[in-house]
Amino acid sequence: MRVVDLIRRKRDSEELTGEEIEFLVAGYTAGEIPDYQMAAWLMAVVLKGMTRAELAALTEAMLHSGDTLDLSDLAARKVDKHSTGGVGDKTSLVVAPVVAAGGLLVPMISGRGLGHSGGTLDKLESIRGFNVNLSLAEFRRVLGSCGCALIGQTAEIAPADKKIYALRDVTGTVESPYLICASIMSKKLAEGIDALVLDVKTGSGAFMKKEQEAVYLAELMVETGRRMGKKVVALITDMDQPLGRKAGNALEVEESLEALEGGGPEDLRELCLELAAWMFHLGGRSDTVVGGKKLAAEMIASGRARDKFREIIRLQGGDTAVMDDPSRLPRARQTLSVRSPASGYVAGVQCEQLGIACVVLGGGRERKEDSIDPAVGLTFHKKVGDAVNRDEPLCTIHYNSEARLGEARRLVEQSYRIEPSAPRGPRPLVFRVIGE
Amino acid sequence: MRVVDLIRRKRDSEELTGEEIEFLVAGYTAGEIPDYQMAAWLMAVVLKGMTRAELAALTEAMLHSGDTLDLSDLAARKVDKHSTGGVGDKTSLVVAPVVAAGGLLVPMISGRGLGHSGGTLDKLESIRGFNVNLSLAEFRRVLGSCGCALIGQTAEIAPADKKIYALRDVTGTVESPYLICASIMSKKLAEGIDALVLDVKTGSGAFMKKEQEAVYLAELMVETGRRMGKKVVALITDMDQPLGRKAGNALEVEESLEALEGGGPEDLRELCLELAAWMFHLGGRSDTVVGGKKLAAEMIASGRARDKFREIIRLQGGDTAVMDDPSRLPRARQTLSVRSPASGYVAGVQCEQLGIACVVLGGGRERKEDSIDPAVGLTFHKKVGDAVNRDEPLCTIHYNSEARLGEARRLVEQSYRIEPSAPRGPRPLVFRVIGE
Repeated sequence: MRVVDLIRRKRDSEELTGEEIEFLVAGYTAGEIPDYQMAAWLMAVVLKGMTRAELAALTEAMLHSGDTLDLSDLAARKVDKHSTGGVGDKTSLVVAPVVAAGGLLVPMISGRGLGHSGGTLDKLESIRGFNVNLSLAEFRRVLGSCGCALIGQTAEIAPADKKIYALRDVTGTVESPYLICASIMSKKLAEGIDALVLDVKTGSGAFMKKEQEAVYLAELMVETGRRMGKKVVALITDMDQPLGRKAGNALEVEESLEALEGGGPEDLRELCLELAAWMFHLGGRSDTVVGGKKLAAEMIASGRARDKFREIIRLQGGDTAVMDDPSRLPRARQTLSVRSPASGYVAGVQCEQLGIACVVLGGGRERKEDSIDPAVGLTFHKKVGDAVNRDEPLCTIHYNSEARLGEARRLVEQSYRIEPSAPRGPRPLVFRVIGE
Repeated sequence: MRVVDLIRRKRDSEELTGEEIEFLVAGYTAGEIPDYQMAAWLMAVVLKGMTRAELAALTEAMLHSGDTLDLSDLAARKVDKHSTGGVGDKTSLVVAPVVAAGGLLVPMISGRGLGHSGGTLDKLESIRGFNVNLSLAEFRRVLGSCGCALIGQTAEIAPADKKIYALRDVTGTVESPYLICASIMSKKLAEGIDALVLDVKTGSGAFMKKEQEAVYLAELMVETGRRMGKKVVALITDMDQPLGRKAGNALEVEESLEALEGGGPEDLRELCLELAAWMFHLGGRSDTVVGGKKLAAEMIASGRARDKFREIIRLQGGDTAVMDDPSRLPRARQTLSVRSPASGYVAGVQCEQLGIACVVLGGGRERKEDSIDPAVGLTFHKKVGDAVNRDEPLCTIHYNSEARLGEARRLVEQSYRIEPSAPRGPRPLVFRVIGE
């Protein structure tokens, strides 16, 4: 088998066998196939796509490039959730304790912020002492003890994905539904789960701007997961504006705590309940999704979800006192209000730009090696459709340094579209469920 | 300027500026841009193509990545010929001395065999002592002294092409008319020529199997050359069967000597006269192509072309005695006849397979580092359209080792298609002239 022939065949739209794809992935992971050949193959995949069989083979090869968790000794069903990312999406922090409180196991391996979107690990680390870098043994222990553990990708899990992702990042080969699907699913399937609920975002703050693209990716992921014997559904959800009213790491933890107490913004609560409902349903804890939603609401109302989150924080070494006193979370020294230039209605926001504003403030990374400031971020006083008066605050910027404040402010100002009349009907929060 | 953005834009079919392409080529040549980024960009070019402006910029950037010859101190016009390669194509060995004898300068930088196709340098090296590795200073001296010099690509000429070509070879990015055009034209334009005649082969033994592909490449090369102020035409010529009756390095030198003496196979003579005619015409030695052809024929008939070849051999250190005694060329120890399995007509040959048979015998390289056997090759007793009796020899295999004789024999046997009736009319030798 010659690598150059496999590249040429993919280039010419021919289908590769599972064996050939396994050869490529294993060879690349082992350092036997050089970066330049993998880069050429990846670009051919971006431009020529893959068949479903090729995609399954790629996912499986990446999955088996490292260790996979065997959680079969733990009796309860293992269910996870994955979001494709957006601005203000802190649902994992709410959903994971809700579902664990409801009796399922949630072995959640998450990521860091990427581009304009935030990451669960960065958010958790704004809780002093919270350790997301558990070994797989520690991960299993926390999971067994409280039903949920939240960690980052370890070197043992899907090392092929780690290496391929780093290459994609510098070779313009990130944007492929096939490669995105294989990357997500190989990691998630390594968790030893029985079921997976995917939250595929669409809109101006999502990686898939168009609903059609989001649906396509969702279909690929659902099919790939099911080929491997997992229960999978994907919710296509709105990311045309930030989720909730806060973006920024500590600010999002704060809002998650509100949601766990039964408060918080309506859209955040609603989406968390939907996601948890599907997890309960796929995990066999409720016969219907409606039943799952009821169970999720009970976990919040009873305080059991909140107690579960406290337990997770404790077991992962974090400061549990933030649960009762969110002022212990890092806070920015300064705030600045961005006010409406006119009276009218918020007709829309440029959601990705709001995410970039957070990055510019220091809340995300522009380079992999950058450190982040957990305290900075944005609070949103007006959501799309809200009426606003001239000079009324639209958004508050939380900042610690003046260095790039002007840039962040400009991004925020330019994000809001104010119009004289109210926009037509609200955008739904959940557009569709794929694989229902 | 970020390389990844240039890759992404090419991937998304956007046009890059000349400055951006120059940045890529210069950065890659200097080792600042890594192989994997160039590989991804090249694959995007293969699959998305280039605009004419991008192609011109790429060619120019590659051309200026190294030295270019300034031959303006030599009074006569400088004209070269380039063939895209095939089986038995020894026209350079005939045309170069013919055109130099006719008063033009021919600064010819050639290549080695590539895949199934032979290379001028390998053929010349079957003449004992012939040195194709002249420095540019020596090249200029030989050229000034006898009007022609035949050498290989030096490290100074278009180093970007050398580096990019090596990468294309292992990343499945060879087959792109844009990249082929830039590779050929950057080297040829570095020769300091005024005019260029391109011989673009089409048929089963050519790199461009389909006439349409050959025409497209020819159009790109003609337009790119003209943008840089050169006179360029391209002849689309037949490579559906080997040119002439001999393939293999020493065998082809032998046949070239026959052609320089006014003999040799008709198709070889005809194509050499056509190519030389256009070179004379573009070089201003004849008002018409017909006049150029007459001049070329005179150079052969008068013996002046033959004398010129002797002079070239002498100045480049070769054994001039082969001119009068071709038996001084390396000869294979053994021959084997492949005979016709039936009576009928040669309806067609699989020309690429005949080229591969030569490689298998040791006449070409399967890996870059392979050495070649100049003596081995094939002589063709029957051309397409010829009548043949059962058991009459179709082809003679000249070999030195039994090791892979069986494989070569099978390739030759499978190449010939014998049918009961004569094929319809002969295929033309020159299909079209592009840029006439």
